[in-house]
Amino acid sequence: MRMVDVIHKKREGEALTQEEIAFVIQEYTHGGAPDYQMSAFLMATFLNGMTNEEISYLTSAMVESGDRVDLSAIEGVKVDKHSTGGVGDKISLIVGPVVASLGIPVAKMSGRGLGHTGGTVDKLESIPGFQIELSSEAFIQAVNTNKIAIVGQSGNLAPADKKMYALRDVTATVDSIPLIASSIMSKKIASGADAIVLDVKIGSGAFMKTVEDARVLARTMVDIGNRLNRKTIAMITDMEQPLGREIGNANEIREALEVLRGTGDAELTEVAVAVAAYMIMLGTGDTDYEAARNKVKDVILSGQAVEAFRRFVASQGGDARVVDHPELLPTARYSFEVAAVETGYVSRINAEQIGIAAMLLGAGRAKKEDSIDYAVGLTLNKKIGDKVAPGESICTIHANREDVREVEAMIRGAYAIAEAKPAPLQLIYDVIV
Amino acid sequence: MRMVDVIHKKREGEALTQEEIAFVIQEYTHGGAPDYQMSAFLMATFLNGMTNEEISYLTSAMVESGDRVDLSAIEGVKVDKHSTGGVGDKISLIVGPVVASLGIPVAKMSGRGLGHTGGTVDKLESIPGFQIELSSEAFIQAVNTNKIAIVGQSGNLAPADKKMYALRDVTATVDSIPLIASSIMSKKIASGADAIVLDVKIGSGAFMKTVEDARVLARTMVDIGNRLNRKTIAMITDMEQPLGREIGNANEIREALEVLRGTGDAELTEVAVAVAAYMIMLGTGDTDYEAARNKVKDVILSGQAVEAFRRFVASQGGDARVVDHPELLPTARYSFEVAAVETGYVSRINAEQIGIAAMLLGAGRAKKEDSIDYAVGLTLNKKIGDKVAPGESICTIHANREDVREVEAMIRGAYAIAEAKPAPLQLIYDVIV
Repeated sequence: MRMVDVIHKKREGEALTQEEIAFVIQEYTHGGAPDYQMSAFLMATFLNGMTNEEISYLTSAMVESGDRVDLSAIEGVKVDKHSTGGVGDKISLIVGPVVASLGIPVAKMSGRGLGHTGGTVDKLESIPGFQIELSSEAFIQAVNTNKIAIVGQSGNLAPADKKMYALRDVTATVDSIPLIASSIMSKKIASGADAIVLDVKIGSGAFMKTVEDARVLARTMVDIGNRLNRKTIAMITDMEQPLGREIGNANEIREALEVLRGTGDAELTEVAVAVAAYMIMLGTGDTDYEAARNKVKDVILSGQAVEAFRRFVASQGGDARVVDHPELLPTARYSFEVAAVETGYVSRINAEQIGIAAMLLGAGRAKKEDSIDYAVGLTLNKKIGDKVAPGESICTIHANREDVREVEAMIRGAYAIAEAKPAPLQLIYDVIV
Repeated sequence: MRMVDVIHKKREGEALTQEEIAFVIQEYTHGGAPDYQMSAFLMATFLNGMTNEEISYLTSAMVESGDRVDLSAIEGVKVDKHSTGGVGDKISLIVGPVVASLGIPVAKMSGRGLGHTGGTVDKLESIPGFQIELSSEAFIQAVNTNKIAIVGQSGNLAPADKKMYALRDVTATVDSIPLIASSIMSKKIASGADAIVLDVKIGSGAFMKTVEDARVLARTMVDIGNRLNRKTIAMITDMEQPLGREIGNANEIREALEVLRGTGDAELTEVAVAVAAYMIMLGTGDTDYEAARNKVKDVILSGQAVEAFRRFVASQGGDARVVDHPELLPTARYSFEVAAVETGYVSRINAEQIGIAAMLLGAGRAKKEDSIDYAVGLTLNKKIGDKVAPGESICTIHANREDVREVEAMIRGAYAIAEAKPAPLQLIYDVIV
């Protein structure tokens, strides 16, 4: 088999065989096929697409390109959850303890943040002492004992995906459904998931801008999951504005705790309850969504969810006192209010710009090598649909420096105020089973 | 400007500006843009196409990427001729002296052969003493004195094209009209042509297989030529079978001489007369095709064409006695007849296979580095439409070795004999002005 012939076939819009796709990925991962052949293949794939069968072959080949996490020593159905990324998205911090408190194992590998989006492991590291690196044995033991552990990505998982992603970034082949779907699914499968809840975000802070695009991606991933024997559910949820009110690392731990206590932001709570309910359905095999939601609400109201969080933090070396004393989390030295100058209703909050404002404060990384400041962040005091009057704070800046003019300007640019009250945003647009 | 943004724009099917195309070619030629970005760009161009305006920008940018031959010291309109390549194509060897004998300057750079097609400079080098390397001054002086000189490609002409061609070959992006058209036209323009006659071949020995494809390429190149102020005519001619009866190097010089004397193969003569007539029309500005054809026939019948060939050979150091004594050209030691085994009519001669058979004898190169044997070649005794009877020779193999079984098998495979006489082939399918 020759790489050029497979490129030619995809260029002609023909469907590739499993052998051909495996060949492309193997050759590329092991250096037999150079970047310039892969980029031609990626552009041909971008423009001519792939069938779901081809995408499942691609996903498998990417899984096979590296290590696979073996979670067989953990009892039960290991349900993973993946978000396509957003601003203020602390759902994993909430649903992990919730699902664990119901006896369903959560053995999660999470990533760090980059650009305008934060990462779950960065947020966890804002808890003093929290260790995101565990040996495989300690990871499995923690899950078997507490039903939950969240660690950073380790091992050589789907190296083909990593190598391809770097190439896609510089060859204008990022936003392709087959390539996005196989990238996400290969990492989840290599991480050992038995079942997967996907949270596909849409809106100003998300990669996908329309419900239609998100639906195509969601359907593709659900189909790929099913083809590869992983029960998969995809939710399409809103990222037109940041999720919840807190953006930052320690900030988001505080807000997650509020939701776990039942006192959190209503919209964030609603999305988290739904994600947790779908995870429970996949973990138990029950198909009654309302029953699953009720279980989630019960463990929140009974305090079991917060207790699960406490055990989880302690078992990974974190200072569990933060659960009752969030003030023990890193706190910024300064806070500044961004005051409204006009009367009206918040009609838009560009989530990506808010994410970048938080990044500029130090809460996120512009480049992989950048370090982050766990204490800093933003609190959105007004969200879309809220009424504002001149002088009222729309946003609080938590900073460790005194000059936040650039950040403030960016926040002002992200907000739009209109005379009329906008129609309420939908939180969950669709669920693909 | 960033390469990734230009790739993105072409990926979306948008037309690029002159600045964007110049940027891509400059960055790629000077190493700023890596192969993997260029191959993504080439695949996007392959699949989304380019407008003729874009192709003219691409052609100009490729011309600008290297040296340009300055022919301004040669008086008159410098008319160049280009064939898209075929088997037995010795047209340049005929039309050069014909056009020169009419006072129109022929200052031609020609290539070497590769694979199943031969090269004009290889054929000329089969004449003892013939020099295909001349200094610029000697080249210009030869043209001013004799109205004709043919040299090998020298200088750094269109290096972007050379670099892109190597990449296209391994990324399945060769057979793209915008890329083929700009490649051909950039080399002709960089070589200093004022006007160009293009001979676009179609059939079993040609890159283009159908008249429709050839017409699109031909129209594109004529339009590009006109946009870049080079009067251009494109002919679409047959390469379903080899052109003429001789394939090889010395062999083809002999056959060209026959045509120049008026005693050559009728079909080869017809195509050569037409090509020469169009070159004369471009060189003189006359638009009367029949008048131009008559001029060509006159210089052949009067012996002026052969005299022009004689002066041309002598001026480049070649032994001009070969004109009257073709036996002075290299001659193969052995000859073998390939005899027909059935009765019928030749219905097909796969030109590419005949070209490969000649290459295997040593008349051509499989790789650039291979040396060639000027003496060896094939004589096609039967062509499409000819009647054959068992025992009659369909082809003579001129070899310098005794074992030609592989070559013979290939020739037999290239010929098809049918009971019915096939419809005669068209020689010239179309002329695009």
